[in-house]
Amino acid sequence: MENTHDFRLPVVNLIGMGAIKNLYTKLLPYKLSKALIVTDKNIIRLGHVEIVEEILKDLFISYDIFDGILHPDCTISFVEDALTYFKKRLNILKKDYHFIISVGGGTNHDCAKGIAIVATNGGDIEDYEGYEKMTKPSLPVISINTTSGSGSEVTNITIMRDDSRGVKMIIADPKMMPIISVNDLRFMETMPPKITANSGIDVLTHSIEGFVAIEASPITDTLAINALKLVFGYLRRAYKNGNDMEAREKMMFAGVMGGMVLNNAGLGYVHSMSHQIGALYEEMHGACNAALLPHVLEFNSLSIPEERILKISETMGMKATDKQDAVNKIKHGIQNLCKDIGLPIHLSSIGVDENDLELLSKNAEKDICSITNPRRGTFVDIMNIFKAAM
Amino acid sequence: MENTHDFRLPVVNLIGMGAIKNLYTKLLPYKLSKALIVTDKNIIRLGHVEIVEEILKDLFISYDIFDGILHPDCTISFVEDALTYFKKRLNILKKDYHFIISVGGGTNHDCAKGIAIVATNGGDIEDYEGYEKMTKPSLPVISINTTSGSGSEVTNITIMRDDSRGVKMIIADPKMMPIISVNDLRFMETMPPKITANSGIDVLTHSIEGFVAIEASPITDTLAINALKLVFGYLRRAYKNGNDMEAREKMMFAGVMGGMVLNNAGLGYVHSMSHQIGALYEEMHGACNAALLPHVLEFNSLSIPEERILKISETMGMKATDKQDAVNKIKHGIQNLCKDIGLPIHLSSIGVDENDLELLSKNAEKDICSITNPRRGTFVDIMNIFKAAM
Repeated sequence: MENTHDFRLPVVNLIGMGAIKNLYTKLLPYKLSKALIVTDKNIIRLGHVEIVEEILKDLFISYDIFDGILHPDCTISFVEDALTYFKKRLNILKKDYHFIISVGGGTNHDCAKGIAIVATNGGDIEDYEGYEKMTKPSLPVISINTTSGSGSEVTNITIMRDDSRGVKMIIADPKMMPIISVNDLRFMETMPPKITANSGIDVLTHSIEGFVAIEASPITDTLAINALKLVFGYLRRAYKNGNDMEAREKMMFAGVMGGMVLNNAGLGYVHSMSHQIGALYEEMHGACNAALLPHVLEFNSLSIPEERILKISETMGMKATDKQDAVNKIKHGIQNLCKDIGLPIHLSSIGVDENDLELLSKNAEKDICSITNPRRGTFVDIMNIFKAAM
Repeated sequence: MENTHDFRLPVVNLIGMGAIKNLYTKLLPYKLSKALIVTDKNIIRLGHVEIVEEILKDLFISYDIFDGILHPDCTISFVEDALTYFKKRLNILKKDYHFIISVGGGTNHDCAKGIAIVATNGGDIEDYEGYEKMTKPSLPVISINTTSGSGSEVTNITIMRDDSRGVKMIIADPKMMPIISVNDLRFMETMPPKITANSGIDVLTHSIEGFVAIEASPITDTLAINALKLVFGYLRRAYKNGNDMEAREKMMFAGVMGGMVLNNAGLGYVHSMSHQIGALYEEMHGACNAALLPHVLEFNSLSIPEERILKISETMGMKATDKQDAVNKIKHGIQNLCKDIGLPIHLSSIGVDENDLELLSKNAEKDICSITNPRRGTFVDIMNIFKAAM
C-alpha cells in the first residue's frame, strides 16, 4: 500500500515586520554577483524595489531591473519579453545573471520563475508545461512578496496566460522552487482594499480546496484549517482598515500557509475553472474563485467525508448538524464574507458571458488542478457548476 | 516594531509508505556522481541501506559507506572518524564526494551534517559551534529517516557530544539544511518499542516546548498543536503494536511536524537540561525529556499566557479551569503516557546522581536551547528544576 505525500517549500522563508533586513545574511554565503530584478512599475513607484536595491548594493551585487509586467496575470509574452531583455544584456555585458529576484505579488513571482526556467533549460517556456518537465534546476529565484494571497512566493508552480490558446498554462517542478522567500509586512501596508480582498479570498480558496484535495496530508490539513481560521478572523478587518497591522500580519501568515497547502495538497475545480475565466476575461483571480467556491463545494461534497465538511464549517465558526447543513452554512459564510469585502458572488457580475461557458468548461476539464479535485466530473458537470455560479 | 520569524525546511520532503522510490527522480537533475553514505551497522543489518544502494546504482552514482556511528548520540569523534575516512578515500580516488546520504535516526543525520559542514568549510567541526558560523554552504545532505522523533532530517541543526568538555555541542545554520528528506514508513516498521517510546516522547517535547518558545509563530503553533494531538492519539498504539501501521504513520507525520517546530520556533530548558544528562550519562534523549518536561513547564508557566497552557491541556484531551489546573493536568497526562510506554518519570531512575546536578545546571544554562525558553532562569532555578525532577 503506497501512500506518499511530498512536502516542498523554499529552504529559507523570512517572515514578519522587518524580515527583508535578514536577506543580507542569507544571500551572503551564495557569493552571487549579478541579479535580475523582475517587477512592475507600480511596485517601483511604491518604493519597494529601492529597499531591495540597497541590500544588493551592500552586498556588491550588480543588477538590472525588468519592470515590464502588467496585471492582473503573468502572460507568456511577459516571460518572452524578459528573456529578450535578459539575452540582450548578456550580449552587451558578456556576463550571466546569477539569480533572479522577483518583487511583487503572484504575477511577478510567476514571471520570474518562468524566466529562471528557460535561462538554464533553454527552449521556450511552453516546453515545460505540466509536471516536472525540466531537466536542470532553474536559475535561483528569490521571491519578495508584497501581497497576501497567491502563495506563489513559496510554491514550485508558475501559471501564466497563454493568449494564443486562451488558457492558463501551468508549470510545476521542484527544480524552480525559490531558494528564499520574503514576506515582510512593510511591503503589505500599501495593498489597496481591492487587492486585499482578492488576495484574501484566494487564501480562503487555497485552504478549503487544499483541505479536500486528494493529495492532502496531516501537515497540509493543519495548515489549511489554520489559514481558514485566520481568513475568517482577520480578512474583514484588513479590508476595512489597511493600517490594521495585526490583521495584515495574520493575513500574511494565512497567505504563506495557504501557499504551503496549495503546493503540497493540490487544488481542485475552483482553480481549474477560475483559471479559464482569468484567461478569457483578464478578471482578478480572487473574485472568480469567490463566485465558484460555494458551487464547486456543493458538487464535491458527495466525495468528501462528512467530518471534513463539518470541520470546515466549524472552523468558520458555524456548528452544523450534518453534511448538507454544513455545505449550506459554508456557502452562506463565504458569500457573506464576499459581500462584506466588495467581491461579486455571481459570475455574471464579473462579466462572464453565458455563451462562453462551453469553451470555459472544455478548458477547465484539462486544467492541471482538476487532477487533485476530490470528485471526478464530466464536461457536463463542469458546465452545470459554471451555470449555477452565474 | 520588528517581529520576524524565519521558517526553514528542506526544499523537498518525501513522506509516506513507499516515498523512497521518489528519490530517484528527485536526485536525477542534480547530476551527482559520487556519494558517501553515513549510517550504522544496525541500519545496514536491517536492510535499509541496501534499498538506498539500489537507487544509487540505478542512477550510476558511485558510493562508499561509512558505518562507524554508535548510539545513542552523535559525538565529535564520529564526525572526525568519518572525515578521516573521507579524506583517505579522496587520496586514493582523487575524486570528491558530491553529496552525503544519511540513513538512520537523528544521530546519523547529525553526524552527516557535521561531515558536510567541514567538507566544504574546512577546519574542525568545533569551529562552527553556535548560530550561522559557516561561510559556505555545506556539501548537499540527503537525510533518510528510520525513526519518528528527532526531526533532524528536516532541521538545520546538528548536535553532538563533546566528550572533552562533557557537554553537547550545537551547530545551527541554514547552509547545512538537507536538500531532500525522506520519511518512508517502511523504514519505521523495524523500530523496537524502546526507540518508539523514546523518539515519540521527543516529539511530544518538541511540540510543547516549541509551542511556548519565544520564536513561535502562527505556522509553528498550528504544527505543534497537531503534532501534540497525534502523539496523544497514537504513541501508545505504536508502542504496544509496532505493526500498527496507522499509528506508525501518524507518529511519522508528528515527527516531521515536530522537526518543523523545533527548527523554527526553538526549544527551551527541557532540551537544555536533557542535553547535559545525555552528555554525561549517555542516556536516551527521550527518557531525559520525559522526566524533565513537567517540571520545566511548571517553572515556565509564570511566563506563558494562560490561553497557551489551556490549549495544551485541551489538545491532550483535558479541559482545565485555569492555568494552574491546566499545568497539573498536563503534568499528569505526560507522566501517565510515560508510564504506559515504559519510560521513567524520575531522573533518579535514569541514574542521574544528585552530586552531578551542579555541573549539569552550569552547562544547561549555557546551552543554545535556553535562548528561546519563555522564562529566564538563574543557575539556582535550573538546579531546582533538576531537583524537582529527581
